[in-house]
Amino acid sequence: MRTKDDIKQAALFEATVKLVNETGFAASSVSKIAKQANISPATIYVYYKNKEDLLVSTYIDIKKNISIALLKDFDDSLPIRDILKSVWFKMFNYIEIHPDYFQYAEQFSNSPYQALVNKQEIEKYFEPMMNVLLRGIEQKIIKNVNFDILLAFIFYPIMAISNTWLCQDIELDHDEIGTAFDLAWDAIKR
Amino acid sequence: MRTKDDIKQAALFEATVKLVNETGFAASSVSKIAKQANISPATIYVYYKNKEDLLVSTYIDIKKNISIALLKDFDDSLPIRDILKSVWFKMFNYIEIHPDYFQYAEQFSNSPYQALVNKQEIEKYFEPMMNVLLRGIEQKIIKNVNFDILLAFIFYPIMAISNTWLCQDIELDHDEIGTAFDLAWDAIKR
Repeated sequence: MRTKDDIKQAALFEATVKLVNETGFAASSVSKIAKQANISPATIYVYYKNKEDLLVSTYIDIKKNISIALLKDFDDSLPIRDILKSVWFKMFNYIEIHPDYFQYAEQFSNSPYQALVNKQEIEKYFEPMMNVLLRGIEQKIIKNVNFDILLAFIFYPIMAISNTWLCQDIELDHDEIGTAFDLAWDAIKR
Repeated sequence: MRTKDDIKQAALFEATVKLVNETGFAASSVSKIAKQANISPATIYVYYKNKEDLLVSTYIDIKKNISIALLKDFDDSLPIRDILKSVWFKMFNYIEIHPDYFQYAEQFSNSPYQALVNKQEIEKYFEPMMNVLLRGIEQKIIKNVNFDILLAFIFYPIMAISNTWLCQDIELDHDEIGTAFDLAWDAIKR
């Protein structure tokens, strides 16, 4: 059962995402977010130290949320290509269901606030996926290159394609997502 | 020779990039940008209709700048892979020389201001590069897939890798940029 606290926190989360997406980070003051969430500004400070803390926490919540979505029915025993393809589709699926959370995370990770995030915490959430890549390198299935380079081809193209399609109001097409995965796989496979 | 107007416009451009990168879009008011550029706010309105116009123009100037850098010594008669590899290195080079312009463009293209840009104008600047991809598809050298998907593998990984490296203060290493290009080429080639 959700407690009163949970409900307030959820309202704050939604209000932060909505206001930031509509007006940007600087214009999203604590008082405006409070108003949007229908919560007194003083209550926000019960949960968060300040505006930065609220913005960073919202970002971390989204990343955690994404990792939970990607790890649903995660089966480490499958062939590496199949695992990655399944994660690929789940990520597109998440973005389709939550374009607003995705937009917030994209804006955040290109903003100066990014520097305030504990990167190790975020990496922890995505560890099972990273381990699949490491295993692929060990088994000589995946190219043994810098991890940042691998991620630029197996993970970031999802962001690029989703951004482009969402901006143009194009639906995320299942066949094209599969085609895009083939390119990602060709990039990273040995 | 640079006229007085050119010098003022250049100062405005630099001030806009600096202020937005440091404080974000919403906090960068016309009066703050004017102060930073050492120009009276009234003078800004001689060149730009309003803040939005200034922000959008700054973005378009950067994109134009990038396209000029990429098209330097552009040789359409070379093999397609060589042309793309040369453009790839030039883009990393641009980012290394102008990390501040790159950061502005990245923030801008993930902000709500993106909607105000005339996309056709931007596309015009990059047409020669796009034509190389089209020729590659025609000659069955490059996979015949949606253009947005191709760009997600031949263009956006540069952004992803640069962002990661710039954030971690890692120098852009020539060998690794070449390795990354190999992955991009493997992704798009038939």
